[in-house]
Amino acid sequence: MDIKSIQKELKKENLSGALFTLGNMFIDEDILPEENRIRELTGFSGSYALLFITPAKAFLFVDGRYELQAKKEVNLKQIEIVKLAEICFADWLKKSFAKTAARISYNPWQLSQNTLESLQRQLPKAEFIPASPDKCLSPKKVKVFAHQKKFTGLSAKDKLSLVCAYIKQRKLAAFLVTSAASCSWLLNLRSNALPCTPVLRAYVLVEKSGTYKIFAEHTDLKEALPFEKLAAILPQYAKLGTDFATAPAMVKNLKPDVINTPDEIMNLKAVKNPTELKGTRAAHLRDGIALTKFMYWLSKNYKGKTETDIAAKLLDFRKKEANFYSESFATIAGFGTNAAIVHYHACPERAATLKKGSVLLLDSGGQYFDGTTDVTRTIALGDPTADMVEKNTLVLKGHIALASAVFHQHTAGNELDLLAREPLLKLGLDYEHGTGHGVGYFSDVHEGPARISIHAKHSAPLKAGMVTSIEPGYYKENAFGIRIENLYYVKPAKNPKFLQFEVLTLAPLDKRLINKYLLTADELKWLNHYHRQVFLSLKKYLTKQELEWLKDACAPL
Amino acid sequence: MDIKSIQKELKKENLSGALFTLGNMFIDEDILPEENRIRELTGFSGSYALLFITPAKAFLFVDGRYELQAKKEVNLKQIEIVKLAEICFADWLKKSFAKTAARISYNPWQLSQNTLESLQRQLPKAEFIPASPDKCLSPKKVKVFAHQKKFTGLSAKDKLSLVCAYIKQRKLAAFLVTSAASCSWLLNLRSNALPCTPVLRAYVLVEKSGTYKIFAEHTDLKEALPFEKLAAILPQYAKLGTDFATAPAMVKNLKPDVINTPDEIMNLKAVKNPTELKGTRAAHLRDGIALTKFMYWLSKNYKGKTETDIAAKLLDFRKKEANFYSESFATIAGFGTNAAIVHYHACPERAATLKKGSVLLLDSGGQYFDGTTDVTRTIALGDPTADMVEKNTLVLKGHIALASAVFHQHTAGNELDLLAREPLLKLGLDYEHGTGHGVGYFSDVHEGPARISIHAKHSAPLKAGMVTSIEPGYYKENAFGIRIENLYYVKPAKNPKFLQFEVLTLAPLDKRLINKYLLTADELKWLNHYHRQVFLSLKKYLTKQELEWLKDACAPL
Repeated sequence: MDIKSIQKELKKENLSGALFTLGNMFIDEDILPEENRIRELTGFSGSYALLFITPAKAFLFVDGRYELQAKKEVNLKQIEIVKLAEICFADWLKKSFAKTAARISYNPWQLSQNTLESLQRQLPKAEFIPASPDKCLSPKKVKVFAHQKKFTGLSAKDKLSLVCAYIKQRKLAAFLVTSAASCSWLLNLRSNALPCTPVLRAYVLVEKSGTYKIFAEHTDLKEALPFEKLAAILPQYAKLGTDFATAPAMVKNLKPDVINTPDEIMNLKAVKNPTELKGTRAAHLRDGIALTKFMYWLSKNYKGKTETDIAAKLLDFRKKEANFYSESFATIAGFGTNAAIVHYHACPERAATLKKGSVLLLDSGGQYFDGTTDVTRTIALGDPTADMVEKNTLVLKGHIALASAVFHQHTAGNELDLLAREPLLKLGLDYEHGTGHGVGYFSDVHEGPARISIHAKHSAPLKAGMVTSIEPGYYKENAFGIRIENLYYVKPAKNPKFLQFEVLTLAPLDKRLINKYLLTADELKWLNHYHRQVFLSLKKYLTKQELEWLKDACAPL
Repeated sequence: MDIKSIQKELKKENLSGALFTLGNMFIDEDILPEENRIRELTGFSGSYALLFITPAKAFLFVDGRYELQAKKEVNLKQIEIVKLAEICFADWLKKSFAKTAARISYNPWQLSQNTLESLQRQLPKAEFIPASPDKCLSPKKVKVFAHQKKFTGLSAKDKLSLVCAYIKQRKLAAFLVTSAASCSWLLNLRSNALPCTPVLRAYVLVEKSGTYKIFAEHTDLKEALPFEKLAAILPQYAKLGTDFATAPAMVKNLKPDVINTPDEIMNLKAVKNPTELKGTRAAHLRDGIALTKFMYWLSKNYKGKTETDIAAKLLDFRKKEANFYSESFATIAGFGTNAAIVHYHACPERAATLKKGSVLLLDSGGQYFDGTTDVTRTIALGDPTADMVEKNTLVLKGHIALASAVFHQHTAGNELDLLAREPLLKLGLDYEHGTGHGVGYFSDVHEGPARISIHAKHSAPLKAGMVTSIEPGYYKENAFGIRIENLYYVKPAKNPKFLQFEVLTLAPLDKRLINKYLLTADELKWLNHYHRQVFLSLKKYLTKQELEWLKDACAPL
């Protein structure tokens, strides 16, 4: 497939343009490089973009993170870069087709029904034409495996009965689950389809009675039906529900009277059960051991190592821990000026070499059968500057303010976010990303519906049992970057009318980057208490040298 | 009108029940006692209730504040009290009419179109029948007067042209303004209809061209048309807009195709113009002088005085200030255990007498031609207990956290609220009211759309120029109550990407109720800076004795 042949087709079919999004039939979930049609068509390798091809031109829509990268990667003679910071796609369409009624083709597997309906609402005169259904699924064979009940706490049968109750409450005959993470949780199945997210990429059709059908392709799962069967099966149900946020438009094309019904599994799986919570705590202990051993190793060996070298070393430490399966995402190891790039990923050819005099921002995590971790530490190599210390201390103050907050039931993430930003905002500073995200259980490291972000105005209320990150940061362009990230679970406070966070992550914070005179007495108490907890939790699992190092790292300030 | 004759009528008309709300044709605005149909029918004198009369019974729906009071005031043989804390009205209706299709009469002047539509949505089988249109307007003659341009900054003509632009943008032929506060702002008119809120109670119909008609009754305004004329006039417009939140259902009854259109005047008037901001600052200076003189007087004279005595004395001090018009609400002066009742209003027969050993909670404000004030001070009489000092200090910490916050553009009140509650929540404590409300300009002391409350999930973003209260509190039943309230205006922060608050209220906080060792260095700095500002602002306007007292009251801690 190339742009020119698409343009030929557009002319033939008298179409105004063809829309491509970045993703496959599992809307908004991770994809493999070979599933990336935008990369195939344009060469652009970032993690977010829209491509709109007209008979004469092609337009690549990218956000602030990717403006420079897009310019480098694509053929600017053929493709125009449009900045999403300046105009959103729907407005661009409205402007471009102000006078003519546009006829726009889209891939019905790739666009969620919600996105399609939003475009239709905003461009009432335009015609959106489903074309070239392409599931964008890699043909690579996938191994499926069970997530054992000793880890999940609930059997698939238990979970199906919860979903059946929901189906009955909604007065449906059946519900089509189209989120891979939801399907994986529901059936206690996982797969090796993706390198860091162990989900089984499948759809599951659950009937009111509790019987179900799995749809998946290129797997060794015998009971799986090919997605093509949906065309014959979906119309058989009088009242079928699916979540238009995660269902591709294809579902409504196949079953025009399908009812938009929230995917309740999202809410069920977000609240961890006692087995999952116990597992998550145990996984975080092992992850803390690995990270702490790594930090000790790093303190002795950083000189001359590159960003990719140390990421590999950290993975080696994690691999030694029980129940380890994979990284939970590709480690972000940014040294010096690279640390200022929020979404930095080193590649071996360009990786920076570590040396004295700056900071290393290290954001990493592991998938364990009994939990998923995600942790960021900012580590000084040699003596940090006063600016680095001040900014790290401000970020720490924000982290502590949120981590020690007590809040009402039904408080949403956007109502908590400012607590973490205040120390920076008071100085006119900020960070351009969210403050926290929900985390799955041997599943997506970014899991809905929990989200802590001033920009997510209608985020879901936090509930006891949810796991979320707290990760304020600060980034000084061409200088350095700071982020302090722990995971926490939500639990009832001492007064059980209210909620609070309980820390999961166990690894020391670099005290060389903390100015204790900028901390209040309560903040200092939090820090020393956290370090004591880290030390007491990890001390049994370290070598003599590692223990000496940790004792020092955790000594009260 | 009495319950029995209504019940007779219900039987005759074969109706299931009649709904009465508390209010007149100006939805959710203050009313006069003689306009209160629920009081007339039941004797209940609280500020919020719903009354539902069936052929056999009557049900009075009240919230937690009024459960006890309702039981005392109404005839329990005839009227059953329903607690809104346990069931909302719509759910109660659903339960009561689960099997029969209810036929419910309502007063179309008294119910907003939004409320009617919400009830209809929740009870799709019920029939809502407009009955007995009663505007619930006092026949007392009202004097109308101009709010002079030297105070308003903009002429009515200027304001009309802003509204015309909005009407055109919305592609309407005309817009019917039904909020009394909006009409008053638009035409720079005020009236003496209400004791503490100087609004002109009118509707204004603005045409696209800028011409307008005023509808008002019992006023000396010559150009005013009676409301009955709406029936003939509204249908003349092809596209008429009105805000269903503030328009009574009557408007849609008279003009079935009226279009629900937000009242943009709410947003326009919430952002104060430079003349209004200057006025507000000047009014707050005068109000601070009056309150400070009163506090000095109180310190010497409280013994033997009752709550109503001192409220009258405070009014005397305010009356001496330039541009003073009236109180902005009936002063809440609660001493001792009365201070623990959030909505306490003393009456001369029951007012407590002030004496040593507890606190006075004093919430009051003034209407000045150049601004509206609202301030709460908690004042120790004699030596306060350690508990009072601790709780007042926690409330102060919350007040300071919010007052000194820096926040993003588009931050809504519910996203700020937790900053003020954290010091209490951390100890498992809280207050059961909002943290702040918008304030009008020689108008409603509670003005939308700004609101700072964890319970107002979809409140409007704060904008530069808005005026809001910050008023955390703490109430210990049968013991004492604390509230610390200042007004602030919103302005760009040093980094103009962000916003912050600037204080308007100028009156000392009682240092005898502050434990400085519970404050952080930054909090102490805020307090001492505020007191210095109060002292420097007020010092010119006081007697020698008052000045001595203020010097001491404002000396740094």
